[in-house]
Amino acid sequence: MEPKLLTDLLIPATTKIVFIIMDGVGGIQMEGKGGTELQVARKPNLDQLAEISSCGLLDPVSPGITPGSGPSHFALFGYDPFQFNIGRGILEATGIDFPLTEKDVVARVNFATIDQDGKVTDRRAGRISNETNARVCRKLKESLRLNREVEVIVEPVKEHRAILVLRGEGLRGEVEDTDPEQEGVPPLEPKASIPEARGTADLVRDFVTQSRKILADESKANMVLLRGFAKYSRYPTMKERYGLNSLAIASYPMYRGISRLVGMTVLASVSSLEEEFKALAAHFADYDFFFLHIKQTDSRGEDGNFDGKVAVIEEVDRFLPQVRVLRPDVLVVTGDHATPAKMRSHSWHPFPVLLHSPYCLIDPVKKFDEVNCIGGLLGKMPSVQLMPLVLAHAGRLGKFGA
Amino acid sequence: MEPKLLTDLLIPATTKIVFIIMDGVGGIQMEGKGGTELQVARKPNLDQLAEISSCGLLDPVSPGITPGSGPSHFALFGYDPFQFNIGRGILEATGIDFPLTEKDVVARVNFATIDQDGKVTDRRAGRISNETNARVCRKLKESLRLNREVEVIVEPVKEHRAILVLRGEGLRGEVEDTDPEQEGVPPLEPKASIPEARGTADLVRDFVTQSRKILADESKANMVLLRGFAKYSRYPTMKERYGLNSLAIASYPMYRGISRLVGMTVLASVSSLEEEFKALAAHFADYDFFFLHIKQTDSRGEDGNFDGKVAVIEEVDRFLPQVRVLRPDVLVVTGDHATPAKMRSHSWHPFPVLLHSPYCLIDPVKKFDEVNCIGGLLGKMPSVQLMPLVLAHAGRLGKFGA
Repeated sequence: MEPKLLTDLLIPATTKIVFIIMDGVGGIQMEGKGGTELQVARKPNLDQLAEISSCGLLDPVSPGITPGSGPSHFALFGYDPFQFNIGRGILEATGIDFPLTEKDVVARVNFATIDQDGKVTDRRAGRISNETNARVCRKLKESLRLNREVEVIVEPVKEHRAILVLRGEGLRGEVEDTDPEQEGVPPLEPKASIPEARGTADLVRDFVTQSRKILADESKANMVLLRGFAKYSRYPTMKERYGLNSLAIASYPMYRGISRLVGMTVLASVSSLEEEFKALAAHFADYDFFFLHIKQTDSRGEDGNFDGKVAVIEEVDRFLPQVRVLRPDVLVVTGDHATPAKMRSHSWHPFPVLLHSPYCLIDPVKKFDEVNCIGGLLGKMPSVQLMPLVLAHAGRLGKFGA
Repeated sequence: MEPKLLTDLLIPATTKIVFIIMDGVGGIQMEGKGGTELQVARKPNLDQLAEISSCGLLDPVSPGITPGSGPSHFALFGYDPFQFNIGRGILEATGIDFPLTEKDVVARVNFATIDQDGKVTDRRAGRISNETNARVCRKLKESLRLNREVEVIVEPVKEHRAILVLRGEGLRGEVEDTDPEQEGVPPLEPKASIPEARGTADLVRDFVTQSRKILADESKANMVLLRGFAKYSRYPTMKERYGLNSLAIASYPMYRGISRLVGMTVLASVSSLEEEFKALAAHFADYDFFFLHIKQTDSRGEDGNFDGKVAVIEEVDRFLPQVRVLRPDVLVVTGDHATPAKMRSHSWHPFPVLLHSPYCLIDPVKKFDEVNCIGGLLGKMPSVQLMPLVLAHAGRLGKFGA
């Protein structure tokens, strides 16, 4: 469904939509555990909801493709993840609420340690403290002198991570990573991946050379590694595309950043599941669309902590009645991708989705897990196809054709 | 998923992938038999494997479309069957290991019998012997005199089949078949299907006219029927697209030819199922990807021999433990299309697939057949989507996006 076509079909409504997104909720069976994380979790509220919902499986991007957090969330919000494949630098920048402009090329910076031969000995500079990070960024800011009409901004994010922003006319994002993604080798040379980006690559080379000199007396953070170059461009907002006033409730910066990119209002700070669910109730009158993001399922999966991930799912299950009582017109519970504890990483596997509304067609699925949801009405579909279904169930889409 | 994008995501790995392809394995229920060929076959090893795999159904090209062997195999290897729709002539040429160049237009030749009125009385010239075929090809070669700077090659294949290769600058493949595909009518005139191919069509007309004169004294092979004109162009290889060193184990020339087109190493000659499975074990250390092709399922289907096809499936089932013991990282068992014995021909029906790996999400399917695999995790998908999933399960694809 073309976004333009969808926008043309929009009709005014006051209905409310809630997305409960358990990051990396999908899993695979793990030996000795008796199933996937969702199969093993005791989750009476989720299962009871599945029983009166339309269920299915989502392919985050395309079968076999393991997505990063950017593409997987963009797809959930109905934005084509191939068209809107944002760079890591932009994700980081939005995560710290850095105000990007359309003149900016952004990259993620890792402060790193190199030895006297210039080889990387620690890609994360021993995870320097936030204070050291801020000090080193200030030092760069004070001493860097690039020879063009370009503003250079280095902003700390957290530990060894920062962002580099080059702001000026005619800059291009097509510059290759300098992070070699391994230790024992020197950083890569900044290279333009298309001829039009050569000027920008030269500028990056100059930045790297100067930074190395400026940081030479640092014991740990004596080098910068750059990756995920991209030019920022404004994205169409949820309001523009769907007519939705949207609120993001997320405890991790990156997800607040993604939400901001699509024009959501972002709740300042929530730090526990309990606070997130309370915030949903507190702001329920004020928005049309609510994105409640739960990071812990993904974190436990990345740690290979099967039981820990099960426990998070069970905790979310206990909060579910607090959402039901708000009586949203459409309630979606799903993930953004799978992070099987068995694999300790994001994966390509499809993961379950349930869509509940007074107008959903109820299917035979009675358990909210990967294996049972195969038999659901929604079938297996790319995540990007979810949003039109949600808008329809929310009474926000008119008829197509006469 | 764009092939370019997939290639960009490749990461180095030493994992091994095995495709067991039972040609035409899919079927439909046949009266008095109690099900489809796969439902009726006793195949304990395949069913046990299905029980610990992801299962589904493949649409060979697109719902309702019956494919030839070219598109159905290209799709299995992840090549878009519409983009890479190769001509029959090229298939035949690669099947006899004929070294094509990018100056070549190729067509399949059927030697045929015509009567004194020029009407076709036998489209296969009574299936002349290979010796007669070779003699007739030599005769053409010695006497043909075309009036342009174009080399003309006629190479015998088998029985009544040969290939015509026109080699020269500026030739085009857009020439229509001269084979009327029925008897009792004259051959069709060679016609260009686009204006740019008129020169080539004229050349073909000259070839046909001369061939008819040269062969006038033959009792059976006194005419040539041409079909499947196509210009040869080199295809991207499995190595280029997926980083895979691939081995094809196939007893039939056409499948060896298809494998060669996508850059596989082709095992010289194997003539029985037993030899094929032995060859897989013998070469297992030397390649990343193994295509083991079983022709007999299709042959029995084409013969309308339901029980014979069941017997081939059962025989393959008995060889399966010899594959399992090699412990490939990804094992796929499927077909290339359906050849229901009830229809005695290729068909458009979807057919089952199973994908086994330590990282597959296990679904509830416990029987490897058309009807049970509907309930599998992979759902029903076009064959061309299989390869990205296979690469993912083999740990050969990195993350998409930040």
